[in-house]
Amino acid sequence: MEEITNQITEINGVLDIMWILIAGIFVFFMQAGFTLVESGFTRAKNTINIVMKNLMDLCIGSLAFWAIGYAIMYGDDIGKFIGTPSLFYNEAGEMHNLWFQTVFCATAATIISGAVAERTKFSTYLILSLVMTAVIYPISGHWVWQGDGWLTELGFIDFAGSTVVHSVGGWAALVAAILIGPRIGKYVKGKSVAIPGHNMMYGALGVFILWLGWFGFNPGSELAMSGESANHVANIVITTNLAAAAGAVMALFYTWFKYGKPDISMTLNGALAGLVGITAGCAAVSNGGAVAIGAICGIAVVASITFIDQKLRIDDPVGAISVHGVCGAIGTLLVGVFGTDGGLFYGGGFHQLGVQAIGVVGIGAWVLVTSFILLIILKKTIGLRVSEKDEIEGLDITEHGMNAYPDFRLNEH
Amino acid sequence: MEEITNQITEINGVLDIMWILIAGIFVFFMQAGFTLVESGFTRAKNTINIVMKNLMDLCIGSLAFWAIGYAIMYGDDIGKFIGTPSLFYNEAGEMHNLWFQTVFCATAATIISGAVAERTKFSTYLILSLVMTAVIYPISGHWVWQGDGWLTELGFIDFAGSTVVHSVGGWAALVAAILIGPRIGKYVKGKSVAIPGHNMMYGALGVFILWLGWFGFNPGSELAMSGESANHVANIVITTNLAAAAGAVMALFYTWFKYGKPDISMTLNGALAGLVGITAGCAAVSNGGAVAIGAICGIAVVASITFIDQKLRIDDPVGAISVHGVCGAIGTLLVGVFGTDGGLFYGGGFHQLGVQAIGVVGIGAWVLVTSFILLIILKKTIGLRVSEKDEIEGLDITEHGMNAYPDFRLNEH
Amino acid sequence: MEEITNQITEINGVLDIMWILIAGIFVFFMQAGFTLVESGFTRAKNTINIVMKNLMDLCIGSLAFWAIGYAIMYGDDIGKFIGTPSLFYNEAGEMHNLWFQTVFCATAATIISGAVAERTKFSTYLILSLVMTAVIYPISGHWVWQGDGWLTELGFIDFAGSTVVHSVGGWAALVAAILIGPRIGKYVKGKSVAIPGHNMMYGALGVFILWLGWFGFNPGSELAMSGESANHVANIVITTNLAAAAGAVMALFYTWFKYGKPDISMTLNGALAGLVGITAGCAAVSNGGAVAIGAICGIAVVASITFIDQKLRIDDPVGAISVHGVCGAIGTLLVGVFGTDGGLFYGGGFHQLGVQAIGVVGIGAWVLVTSFILLIILKKTIGLRVSEKDEIEGLDITEHGMNAYPDFRLNEH
Repeated sequence: MEEITNQITEINGVLDIMWILIAGIFVFFMQAGFTLVESGFTRAKNTINIVMKNLMDLCIGSLAFWAIGYAIMYGDDIGKFIGTPSLFYNEAGEMHNLWFQTVFCATAATIISGAVAERTKFSTYLILSLVMTAVIYPISGHWVWQGDGWLTELGFIDFAGSTVVHSVGGWAALVAAILIGPRIGKYVKGKSVAIPGHNMMYGALGVFILWLGWFGFNPGSELAMSGESANHVANIVITTNLAAAAGAVMALFYTWFKYGKPDISMTLNGALAGLVGITAGCAAVSNGGAVAIGAICGIAVVASITFIDQKLRIDDPVGAISVHGVCGAIGTLLVGVFGTDGGLFYGGGFHQLGVQAIGVVGIGAWVLVTSFILLIILKKTIGLRVSEKDEIEGLDITEHGMNAYPDFRLNEH
Repeated sequence: MEEITNQITEINGVLDIMWILIAGIFVFFMQAGFTLVESGFTRAKNTINIVMKNLMDLCIGSLAFWAIGYAIMYGDDIGKFIGTPSLFYNEAGEMHNLWFQTVFCATAATIISGAVAERTKFSTYLILSLVMTAVIYPISGHWVWQGDGWLTELGFIDFAGSTVVHSVGGWAALVAAILIGPRIGKYVKGKSVAIPGHNMMYGALGVFILWLGWFGFNPGSELAMSGESANHVANIVITTNLAAAAGAVMALFYTWFKYGKPDISMTLNGALAGLVGITAGCAAVSNGGAVAIGAICGIAVVASITFIDQKLRIDDPVGAISVHGVCGAIGTLLVGVFGTDGGLFYGGGFHQLGVQAIGVVGIGAWVLVTSFILLIILKKTIGLRVSEKDEIEGLDITEHGMNAYPDFRLNEH
Repeated sequence: MEEITNQITEINGVLDIMWILIAGIFVFFMQAGFTLVESGFTRAKNTINIVMKNLMDLCIGSLAFWAIGYAIMYGDDIGKFIGTPSLFYNEAGEMHNLWFQTVFCATAATIISGAVAERTKFSTYLILSLVMTAVIYPISGHWVWQGDGWLTELGFIDFAGSTVVHSVGGWAALVAAILIGPRIGKYVKGKSVAIPGHNMMYGALGVFILWLGWFGFNPGSELAMSGESANHVANIVITTNLAAAAGAVMALFYTWFKYGKPDISMTLNGALAGLVGITAGCAAVSNGGAVAIGAICGIAVVASITFIDQKLRIDDPVGAISVHGVCGAIGTLLVGVFGTDGGLFYGGGFHQLGVQAIGVVGIGAWVLVTSFILLIILKKTIGLRVSEKDEIEGLDITEHGMNAYPDFRLNEH
């Protein structure tokens, strides 16, 4: 009888591992989605550079997170702040967790590349990517997901990483976009000039792939499939999908009524905004709450992109700061509003909302400060930007010696 | 002991839910496949419009099917005809089913967009998509898949939806293509003029993605993985793959011998035709039967596309009517021929074939009538087509204010 | 009690089947990856031809491997050399194995298409693909994976097919590239002329999809998920990912220091080289060993591509011989170095390395000889190459009567 109980326990463990592995494979594929979106929303002459940055986020992230990042994030807690560092994580029976967390880490790094596209030195970017995946992301992640961090103790809820992953990427993107400065020709006499992306199908395919990957990202964050978890995972699939749909629909109608035409890049970003927004609360809100969160983020992302571009005049070619930073923060806060256990709308009062705000601000401050320090050091040493001449010629030729589309006739711009 | 039995029952339930969720994720990805195929087979100037239509099929479908469609399809039967309507489906423990059926529903809607490409008003299309996913598809779906519908009672077999999903989309596409009329320049002096699609790699990648998604579509329709189902699912993977391969090979050789060269768009459509054809019978035929069904559909789709284009002079830019409507009907009928339990070739006589025909005709009539009524109303109110000037300029600019490929020099046409 | 034990056994079987099916679906998707990489790395005028070849590898492979190949590979052993042939494999309860092996077989065939791109007759290619999938691949595969083959008996380790799949494709590609000869304009006065590929995003997306598919390829080759296998599978996911990352990083830095700029096509091939290299030993090496294998292959692939192109003057447009043949061989040999059970670095001495060498050479010789005979016959009968005029015009028009990108203005070359 005991043997049978053991076998059943083992089977449940296998179900959990299997799901975590498969979910991680879907999350892995998000790297292709990011590459497509970022490249599609920028100019043809920088395609190779964007591919290389996204590919290296994955490669460097995979190596760095295994080498050191995972231990910093999930190692035994030191002072509620950081995990005990160790090299080359190799705990038997834990490789499925390393896998799932590795692809999450790579996602956080990749978010930055869109905001700094078309003007950043490739070598500088690689160092930024390395420090993000090895140190900055793991430390704030420790606060929430390791189990003993200070935000966990406060009761902060970020189920799959609206803040832990997306805002971390988004705030680093903000700092980088400010310090690196706008692309040449982006602001003329204080006015924002639209620089259209070179392939809307890449953008669309990228969003479909990201949406697909999110079915690993959020439901996989249950980190289990056995027993009651199967129904939890199913619920999360539904909340994730509804929020994305609501985000896209709201962004579509908002741009339609505001600008007279339904805009593709905003609609695509609306879907992503809904996905980022629901990530924190995907396991804590009802289906209706998910639609509300998605809808709010779908509007917010349009407003934020416009505000950042036209009022703040920060050049973020793909809207990464708004999608991941702003909507990550909003989605995290909204857990305090729509969370069925402790949320404002469910009789919980303002307590959870306050805790969520502490988490958003705390992690935001951490990333803003550390990425600022890092980028200032990089600026003073190897520099952040390519030369003006190189930027105009395009980073594909100047940084990588190659043209992405040699058979096609391109317009100069 | 009873507890152990309960645990084993729970594990089997988890296996089923896990498979349904994962299969649904693969089906979800078919939306990207449809977008790529439809865009690749049409002109560059309508790329954004096609993306937006496909994206909205998914978004509107996800929201509408949750809000009302699922209840109409799967709610308690009323008169063998319709499920009991209720709003915002939220049955605990059933979210995996909502998920799987949602992505099916979105597929049915998306089929239409290809047939009406390059000339339809975007606002009109959104309403069509909404009514399809909220009402038309769920009602006929109820007849076959809810369990108490009139076609279920007759013994109609449509395992994964050759008729329930594909033909429904295909017949609505037929009505829409007729009522909207051909694209400008498509028929000159009664002769069909080829309007080549703008990116064959999109078409190919789309077909690979659709084929991939079909491994969720058909094997997922087992709606289980535990016990004997695992082998059933494996059988369905094989019949699905063989039918697709046979469809593509036959279309390739048929066009090669008929036109002198193996044609890519027909070969790609041949693979899809095989997939659509095997969908009804994937669990009911042998491997050899699957090859036969795929091969028949691979030939039929070429003949049908040619006939509809050149004889009927109905303009269906991507062949959606032939692939999904005609091959959906053929595949459904062929269950009565190749079905190993009741099929003509297995000693079952004409009985099953007759039942299959009733289902094909019954659902066909339902869709033809309802979509006709809907489209006539839309025609009399907001109109079906964009203006001639807008159509020539391209819907990307006129409906969405943007060019999909601003960096590339395009040929005018 | 016995019934419960039976139920638990059944559940473990279901877990295994489910994983094999899902892993196979990921491997299936690699066909899209190969298509994108090969097309992206060659010229726009041959896009359709490359799509058609890859699609037919899958279709013909699926049909041929079911019809005869699987039996030759996995049928009862005859003389440690070949399985007992039988037609139309249909063993109940074995369709998951047929599925997994079918997509492996299609992979081996597809490798060739890249090396012979832009100049090979389509009809000739189809016959080559048929013979590869029906005979050549299954026979050498039998030696290693059926269980009674002569290489299995020797103790040869090739867990997921660095040699069985990749080198088989690679060596056939080598023979074909030599016999077919270089593209017109590739070697001028004995000097290699670079012929840039037409879309680096296709190349990148293709590599992401291949990398994704490899998480089916390697971890799926465990052929189980239940019990201890779950942890094995997780380990393999990690070794696979680390090797790919290391391969890309090394290729990036190697080209950066050697040529002054980090090269995209070499970096992408570096990732693939790492993946091919780790395929043999993914279950037999530590994480550190995986990084070492990936890094070695990332350097080796750059050196090999350069050597084959510039010294041997064999025209391999996408580097398939180096990626799959050379790195497949290296990865197989390195199992004898880094294998934690029997490898050189783990006190095993040279024994395993010797066995690995025998396998590499034995299978290499088999493929070189059989593909040479086949290609010589094809050369003497229907011919290997298209006419010079057709090659210059491009195979899309001359072999398939269509232009892949009719809306775009192309540069002539």
